[in-house]
Amino acid sequence: MAAPDEFQLIADLFAPLAAGFPGALGLKDDAALIAAGPDTELVATVDAMVAGVHFLPDDPPDLVARKLMRVNLSDLAAKGAVPVAVLLAAAFPKGTDVAWMRRFAEGLGQDLEEFKVGLAGGDTVATPGPLTLSLTALGRVGQGRALLRSGAKPGDRLWVTGTIGDGALGLLAAQGGLDLPSTDVDALADRYRLPRPRVAFGSGLVGLASASMDVSDGLVQDLGHLCRASGVSAHLRAADVPLSAAARRAVDADFSRLATVLTGGDDYELLFTAPPLADAAIAALAAVVGCPARIVGDIAAGEGVIVVDAAGREMALAHKGWRHF
Amino acid sequence: MAAPDEFQLIADLFAPLAAGFPGALGLKDDAALIAAGPDTELVATVDAMVAGVHFLPDDPPDLVARKLMRVNLSDLAAKGAVPVAVLLAAAFPKGTDVAWMRRFAEGLGQDLEEFKVGLAGGDTVATPGPLTLSLTALGRVGQGRALLRSGAKPGDRLWVTGTIGDGALGLLAAQGGLDLPSTDVDALADRYRLPRPRVAFGSGLVGLASASMDVSDGLVQDLGHLCRASGVSAHLRAADVPLSAAARRAVDADFSRLATVLTGGDDYELLFTAPPLADAAIAALAAVVGCPARIVGDIAAGEGVIVVDAAGREMALAHKGWRHF
Repeated sequence: MAAPDEFQLIADLFAPLAAGFPGALGLKDDAALIAAGPDTELVATVDAMVAGVHFLPDDPPDLVARKLMRVNLSDLAAKGAVPVAVLLAAAFPKGTDVAWMRRFAEGLGQDLEEFKVGLAGGDTVATPGPLTLSLTALGRVGQGRALLRSGAKPGDRLWVTGTIGDGALGLLAAQGGLDLPSTDVDALADRYRLPRPRVAFGSGLVGLASASMDVSDGLVQDLGHLCRASGVSAHLRAADVPLSAAARRAVDADFSRLATVLTGGDDYELLFTAPPLADAAIAALAAVVGCPARIVGDIAAGEGVIVVDAAGREMALAHKGWRHF
Repeated sequence: MAAPDEFQLIADLFAPLAAGFPGALGLKDDAALIAAGPDTELVATVDAMVAGVHFLPDDPPDLVARKLMRVNLSDLAAKGAVPVAVLLAAAFPKGTDVAWMRRFAEGLGQDLEEFKVGLAGGDTVATPGPLTLSLTALGRVGQGRALLRSGAKPGDRLWVTGTIGDGALGLLAAQGGLDLPSTDVDALADRYRLPRPRVAFGSGLVGLASASMDVSDGLVQDLGHLCRASGVSAHLRAADVPLSAAARRAVDADFSRLATVLTGGDDYELLFTAPPLADAAIAALAAVVGCPARIVGDIAAGEGVIVVDAAGREMALAHKGWRHF
């Protein structure tokens, strides 16, 4: 491709995406303006993705953009924040096909619209290495109302949204490692490629949940993080962990896959705690936002995570979850 | 090196840097909290840097970190914003020396302290490619008071802070391409490696300047952007552009270097416009913050940038400035 300069790229592909967010200043200024609003605080998170590490070079470009968006929106959702704006830094290999970039921008635009988020800024550079992306997402939450990992109390219930394990089984499926009907393979692979951040659920949990995080590195490991941050222990009932129909069939065909479900990561569901008093309100919230949630365990004093099977026996897991780097 | 996991890296190197910013939640939660404050808005910017493209692989790691910080703080300064927090995404090549990372973290910490900015969040990933960094900086400015590129009016004066051209001459100097005394070579190379973002000057310009941006891609090109955004033209008097003593000697030795000064980029000074009524207040501001500022031209109706020499003759410049990608 003829190398267009940064201004041209921004103008052609990204600037139209910023049209709906006046604070972006058309991506033509040095920085973006983000209204804070009275009695609110901003919630900020950043995630990076590298071609060949976090996604495959031949993954559809629109899905790469949307996964990058959604991974970050999931972090905001976990804090109870309503997404406001994102900033994108993209290091494109020289010679990146313009068609690839266009489809990437289209995917980004699709999710900006779906989640009503503004593209507030960006930086596009060239790299001799693989495509490297990072996205910063900014959201808004009432002053002092953000859901943290650190608020869980003994006696709280442990909840998860949606279904667990589809992401990890979906990666196996995408790599051809699951001998399941093709509809199951496709459904799981789709969950791996396109997370469903629980944005509406998360903002609805403000005032209900005592602690919250998103499940990205594996349910058991992430629960361990929540327990450490809160200074509590957890009892996780594996048999109560909600599975999709496809994941259920995968586990039924090979029970060892339950470990993948519990530790595999890439779920982007919410893991949260709440006092039993909130049960009815959480069930109502789930109905309103159209996303199920299930009680999967209990919080107690002490430390550590115990995973038990349907008979109440402790399950040993060789790996607790995904380890980075 | 033995590959430490992400949590260990964050804990050992970056978490201490976030200790001064409670909203970072110790870098142990999914996202950071950033207080907005009444009647303020947030200003956000992001910049990416790639080893071998934006810095040399053997550049001192602390200076790489500090340049990344300062390039972003310069964008905030140009909008009149007071820096609040930064988020860092770092893709480290596998096998990156821990000592390198430690010096990088030290440099980051040094500038977090110098500019009283919080490290609010980060993501550390591995890459098979070159070290790739992106930093998002967030600042605060009074509601509706941010300095934009778009406010310049005919009759305004054109100002720059500090000195222009040191960055571009400094890159030449660092590459051994300047036959000057070693003190000059060192002074210029230092300006290239370590920009001085005009943070105090920028926030002081709120209410005084009509338009503002930072000079990063070359004075003439950036002035063109400001004029286009404002719908005005500019007359730039090259002889009035402030040069450091070292840059003055470089230009005196070879007059063609004046083009490098005017178009070379990497200055990270402020380019701003203000009505003549603000002259005295701007001079007072310059004295208070200890950074000189000089009037280098005028804003008029129309479009385009005219650069004139000391005799008032228009100067032709083959290149207007640095082109990205």
